[in-house]
Amino acid sequence: MTSIPEVRVIGVRGIPLVKSDDDLGQLICAAAEKQGTPIIDRDIIVVTQKIVSKAEGRLVRLKDVTPSPFSRQAAQNLHKSPQLVEVILGEAKSIVRMVGGHLITETRDGWICANSGVDQSNVSGGDMVTLLPVDSDRSARRIRERILTLTGRQVAVIITDTFGRPFRVGHVDVCLGVSGISPLLDLRGQQDLFGYVLRVKRAAIGDELASAAELVMGNSREQIPVAIIRGYSYAIDEAAKATDVIMPMERNLFL
Amino acid sequence: MTSIPEVRVIGVRGIPLVKSDDDLGQLICAAAEKQGTPIIDRDIIVVTQKIVSKAEGRLVRLKDVTPSPFSRQAAQNLHKSPQLVEVILGEAKSIVRMVGGHLITETRDGWICANSGVDQSNVSGGDMVTLLPVDSDRSARRIRERILTLTGRQVAVIITDTFGRPFRVGHVDVCLGVSGISPLLDLRGQQDLFGYVLRVKRAAIGDELASAAELVMGNSREQIPVAIIRGYSYAIDEAAKATDVIMPMERNLFL
Repeated sequence: MTSIPEVRVIGVRGIPLVKSDDDLGQLICAAAEKQGTPIIDRDIIVVTQKIVSKAEGRLVRLKDVTPSPFSRQAAQNLHKSPQLVEVILGEAKSIVRMVGGHLITETRDGWICANSGVDQSNVSGGDMVTLLPVDSDRSARRIRERILTLTGRQVAVIITDTFGRPFRVGHVDVCLGVSGISPLLDLRGQQDLFGYVLRVKRAAIGDELASAAELVMGNSREQIPVAIIRGYSYAIDEAAKATDVIMPMERNLFL
Repeated sequence: MTSIPEVRVIGVRGIPLVKSDDDLGQLICAAAEKQGTPIIDRDIIVVTQKIVSKAEGRLVRLKDVTPSPFSRQAAQNLHKSPQLVEVILGEAKSIVRMVGGHLITETRDGWICANSGVDQSNVSGGDMVTLLPVDSDRSARRIRERILTLTGRQVAVIITDTFGRPFRVGHVDVCLGVSGISPLLDLRGQQDLFGYVLRVKRAAIGDELASAAELVMGNSREQIPVAIIRGYSYAIDEAAKATDVIMPMERNLFL
């Protein structure tokens, strides 16, 4: 008898508002324990970028920002504040689109997304914004190591953010950082049901796990910034990098 | 005491190889029942396009296809067979990119994807390919109504396919057809933790549910073409259309 394939996505409630220098690994372990779903080996812990950025002090107060002449100019067309545009451009390696209120950039890491990932929601104090973590794989690794130290449990960690997509309306959560799990599952060379050899398929499981986690995370008032994905079978990959998901420029059909 | 938010993604094993005119609703109910996870009210039944296309007879034998002069010409650059290119173009409303072996088209429904969704994998007989369903929302509705008739259970149904993404390596499953659930969850106007009003966010939950389901679906040899998503709270929407996810051309920044 074969077992039933099942993946559980468990939201972790009760994580307090995160401040700079908070110990995220500890907060996650404590909250999971407290709600009766302690972390176990092989869990995948999915953490939203927002609380990682807060814990790492990646916050900017807009009124402390001096916009450049270019940011002032661009801000008019974009209907954003010049200070916000300055922060967004400061996080960007290049501008991909700047049209009709949209500012799509390439971040220093190479992610292509709106506003370099700079975000005004769920930050206290009105004019504070969060920046993406400096190195989201490193952020993931720190949380993973902390969980191992505190609980002895071997898990994988994924840091996520909410991105729009070309051609499709709406946002989905995608992976921005990983530790212990590759964001891509390479199926090339495998045979299908009838012996046809798959030539192209790599499943972007990092993004799929991120999207699955979003289903239990709160979106506005009821913030659930962490999810546990349990039952998904994966190979432990110590060298995994989320940036493997970034399409190399020479293969980019849409720029 | 608040409950723990949890979503279960359950793969449905034991669905036989699907043939034209098979009763998918019946096959799904029987297989779910047999493995001990019978369908219950509010389940979301996720079904891969491949078996829907087979049940609806959306199959073409390549050797029966006569390619046009343009298909012959294009096939050379694309390193695909002229017959395959002919089938792909026959399903397309426009060509979005045709470069370096890639043929990205806009399907008649408006989906932008590789090869108009025409697929050679998991089809018997070597030169058979599947086309996307003619109307995936209708396909979803039929399965949903059949499940209601057979079990009395009120569910939602999502038809999925595997798409690549601009800017990101790898494929994810996305929704192509829905019945009973909107593919978009509109969060605009809601307030965040600190009273900031979200201005832009619509969560593409149809795509996120599709990606979650992919985590338990087989990718090649062990085919699991159906998943049950249980515990996700949604509003029943009888007017939902998957094509609401298609970005209107005038808002398309990347064409």
